[in-house]
Amino acid sequence: MNDQTVICAIATAPGMGAIAVIRLSGKGCIEICDRIFVSPSYKKLVDVLPNTIHFGKIVNKEELIDEVLISVFHAPHSFTGEDSIEISCHGSVYIQQRILQLLISSGARLAAPGEFTQRAFLNGKMDLSQAEAVADLIASSSAAAHKMALSQMRGGFSDELMKLRMELLHITSLLELELDFSEEDVEFADRSELRSIAIGIDTLISRLCASFSLGNVIKNGIPVAIVGNTNVGKSTLLNALLKEDRAIVSDIEGTTRDVIEDTINLQGITFRFIDTAGIRHTDDRVENMGIERTFSKIEQARIVLFLIDATKNTEQFLPYYTQVKEHLGPDTRLVILLNKTDQTDSADMILSQITSLSSGEKILPIAAKTGYNIHHLVDELVSTINLNALHSGDVIVSNARHYEALSHARLAIERVITGLDSHLSGEFVSQDIRECLHYLGEITGQITTDEVLGNIFKNFCIGK
Amino acid sequence: MNDQTVICAIATAPGMGAIAVIRLSGKGCIEICDRIFVSPSYKKLVDVLPNTIHFGKIVNKEELIDEVLISVFHAPHSFTGEDSIEISCHGSVYIQQRILQLLISSGARLAAPGEFTQRAFLNGKMDLSQAEAVADLIASSSAAAHKMALSQMRGGFSDELMKLRMELLHITSLLELELDFSEEDVEFADRSELRSIAIGIDTLISRLCASFSLGNVIKNGIPVAIVGNTNVGKSTLLNALLKEDRAIVSDIEGTTRDVIEDTINLQGITFRFIDTAGIRHTDDRVENMGIERTFSKIEQARIVLFLIDATKNTEQFLPYYTQVKEHLGPDTRLVILLNKTDQTDSADMILSQITSLSSGEKILPIAAKTGYNIHHLVDELVSTINLNALHSGDVIVSNARHYEALSHARLAIERVITGLDSHLSGEFVSQDIRECLHYLGEITGQITTDEVLGNIFKNFCIGK
Repeated sequence: MNDQTVICAIATAPGMGAIAVIRLSGKGCIEICDRIFVSPSYKKLVDVLPNTIHFGKIVNKEELIDEVLISVFHAPHSFTGEDSIEISCHGSVYIQQRILQLLISSGARLAAPGEFTQRAFLNGKMDLSQAEAVADLIASSSAAAHKMALSQMRGGFSDELMKLRMELLHITSLLELELDFSEEDVEFADRSELRSIAIGIDTLISRLCASFSLGNVIKNGIPVAIVGNTNVGKSTLLNALLKEDRAIVSDIEGTTRDVIEDTINLQGITFRFIDTAGIRHTDDRVENMGIERTFSKIEQARIVLFLIDATKNTEQFLPYYTQVKEHLGPDTRLVILLNKTDQTDSADMILSQITSLSSGEKILPIAAKTGYNIHHLVDELVSTINLNALHSGDVIVSNARHYEALSHARLAIERVITGLDSHLSGEFVSQDIRECLHYLGEITGQITTDEVLGNIFKNFCIGK
Repeated sequence: MNDQTVICAIATAPGMGAIAVIRLSGKGCIEICDRIFVSPSYKKLVDVLPNTIHFGKIVNKEELIDEVLISVFHAPHSFTGEDSIEISCHGSVYIQQRILQLLISSGARLAAPGEFTQRAFLNGKMDLSQAEAVADLIASSSAAAHKMALSQMRGGFSDELMKLRMELLHITSLLELELDFSEEDVEFADRSELRSIAIGIDTLISRLCASFSLGNVIKNGIPVAIVGNTNVGKSTLLNALLKEDRAIVSDIEGTTRDVIEDTINLQGITFRFIDTAGIRHTDDRVENMGIERTFSKIEQARIVLFLIDATKNTEQFLPYYTQVKEHLGPDTRLVILLNKTDQTDSADMILSQITSLSSGEKILPIAAKTGYNIHHLVDELVSTINLNALHSGDVIVSNARHYEALSHARLAIERVITGLDSHLSGEFVSQDIRECLHYLGEITGQITTDEVLGNIFKNFCIGK
C-alpha cells in the first residue's frame, strides 16, 4: 500500500497565471530534479539544505525550457512526510506541460487525484478526517464553510473521536478480561458504570450526527425556496439580496456565481436560492406539473420565502397558503414577505389582514426595489441557522461518509445499551462495542481499506 | 517614478487549485507579513535567512485563516530586485482573497498589472524588451513561440540592440566633437567610414524589421484560409489535422482550444485556420456577401488551401481559381488539395487535369477521411514558414511596439545616409543619429516615459 515512487503534478489552478507550481514527492525526487535543473553555480539540489529556495534553469539536454525557483523539503518535514520539491515556473500552460513531461521522462510519474494528501495520511502526517478536510478547505467558498473545514483539518473532530475510542477501548478491555476468566464468573466491569459510559457515548455520537444537518448546509449552501406569483418581484428580491452579498469570492474569476446564479453569500453563509415556478390556479396540465415541482422543492428547502404583492388583495395569498404549509418539511421555516410596500398606501391594512389569516409565521413587509427591510430579511435568513455551534468551536460533522459511519456507530452503541439492560453476556456486548469502535475508526482512518481510501481520494483534485 | 510601496497580488492562475501563491514586493513587505504570520517557534520572518521557506499560520488577530509556507527573498536577489515574499496557501478562492485582504489592511496595496515585472525593469534586473518577453513567455502556447520569447527574455535582442547603439554613439560623439571645433573646420569623422557604418546599421535594422513578419505569425499563429465548396470536406480536413496536433497544451484545461476551435499546433508552430464561407456561383445577395468576405480573408491569410472534391468534375475548380489567385497577398502561398481521392477511381485523371489548368502551384492529392497524405500536408504547411532564423538563434522581432520603433530608427538611419551623401553638415547628420538612438533606446527602455511604461505593463496580468 505504501507506494514510494516519485509522483509529480501541477499544484496550482489550471490555465495561465504569472507563475505555476509543480510539486514532486517521494524518495528520489530530488535526484530526479537534479537531472533537469542547472543552477548558476552548478550546485546540486541533493547537496542543499532543506527548506531553501534555488534559482536556476530547467533544461532538456541543450534546450532551455524555463528559468525557475526550486524549493527543497526533506522527509519527514514536508506536507507528505516524504522528500519533496516544488518548482515555481513561469505560468504558461506550455511550460507547465513541458516540465511535467520532462519530470516523467526523468523517472517521476503523474500523481493520482489526492495522492499527495493520501501520502500525508499514510505517512502519519494527518488522519483521514483531516485529509478530507484539506479537500473541503480548498473547496470552501464561504466564511462558515472555511471555518468548519479549517477546524476539522486542525484535528478538532479527530480529538473528539479519539476520546470516544479511548473510553470504548477501556470498557471492552474490561469485558474481554472477563472472558479470559469466564469459568470463574467474575465481573471486572461494573455493569451500571458501563451503562452510564455507553449512554454518554450515545449522547455524544447523537449530537455529532445531529450536527450533520448544519454541517451539510454550511458546506453545500442552505436551500431557500422563493414561492410566489410571477409578477410578485422574485428576481427583484434576488437582486436586492445580491447587493447584501459580501462574499469575498464574488468579484474574482473562477467562482460558482456564473454557474449557479442564485447562490448568495450572506454574513458568511452560503444560501442556495431554488428557482420555483410561479403558483397560480390553472387548468393547464403542463403548468400544473410546474406547480407540483414547486411543492416538491418546498419539501427540500430549509427556508421558504412566501412572497406576496402588497398592491394586490389578499386573495392571491389564501389559496396557496395551506398548500405550501402542507408541503413544509419538519425543519423548514416559512417566512411571509409582503413585497412592493413602497407602491401602495394600504400596506399596513394588507399586513394586518395577512397576519390574521396566517398562523404565527414571521411576516416581514419589504420593498425589494428600494431595498426597504432587506437587511431585516438577511438577519431573518441567517438566524434560521443556529451558528452557535460553529462559533463555540463545537465539532460539526459536514462529511456524508462521516455521518454514515457515525450512524452505524450509534446503532452499535445503542445495541450495547440494550444488551446491558437485558443482561446479555459480556461476549456479545463486547462484540457490539468492537463494531462501534470499527465505525469510529473508519472516520479517522485507523480502520481502513484500499477501496475506502480510493473512494475518498479520487474526488480530490490532482496536485493535492 | 520608483514607487517603493509594498505591492501584493495572487500570482497563480485564477480559480481553485491545490495551492495558490500570493506575492509581495517592496521595502517593508517582510514586516507586513510578520503582522499576520505566526510560526510554530514564534520566529519572525525579518530574522530568517533569505531564500528559506517557513511553515506557519496566517491569522487575523485570533482568527486562523490558513496554514501556509512562506518564502523570503532579500533585495537585490529577487525577481523584482526588492525584498520579496511568496505565500503558498491552500488553493481555495476564499482563502486567497482573505489573505490578500489581510495584507492590504496590514499596509500592502494591490499590485497593478505587470507591476512586479515593471519593478524588475526599474531596478535594473532586466531591460524593457526582456520584461515584455516575460509576458510573451507566459502567453506562449507553442514550442516556437516559447523559444522566441525565452530567447528574448534572456537578452538576445537586447545584446544586438546594444551593439547598434554603441556604434551609433561612437559616430555621433565624433560628429559632435567637430561641432566644438566648428570654427577650425576639421573633420574628425571620416565621412566614407561613417557612411559604411550607417549602411551596416541600416542593413541590420532592416533585417530585424523583416523578421517581424515571421515573429508575428509565430506569436499569434499562422493564418491559413481553407477555401472550397460546402461539401468538399473542410471540417473533415480540420479534424484530420487536429489528429496531427502534438500540442502539449491541448489536453489540459485552460487552453485556447475551446475558444478558437481552429487553432492547431503542428510541429511546434501554431496555425490559425480561418473559417470561410463556401464559394459557389449564386445570385443570392446575402450569399454573395459571404463570398466577398471569403475573398477578403484570403487576402489576410499566409497560406490558402484550395480544397477540391475528386469525385466531381473539374468545373467546380475553374470559376474560382482565377478569383482566388487575384486575392492572394504578395506573401501568400496557395496549395491546391484534391480531397476524397479514396472515393473515386479517377483521381489521377482529375489530378492531371487540374495540374494542366493551374499555374505551377503545389497540388496534393489527399483523403481527409482516411488521413491519406495528411502528414505531407503538414510538412507543406510547416515548410511555408522559414524557421531557420528561429533555430539558428537569430534575433526575431515579435513585438509590434519594437517593430514600430525599429521602423522609425530605420527612417532616421536612412536620413543619415542621404545626409552624408549630400554632404549635409555634421550638426544635422548628428541630429538624425540621435533620433535613431532614441528609437533604439525606446525598445530596451534606456529612453522611456511613464506613459510608454504604463502602456506596456497594463497588458500584463496582475501578479506578474
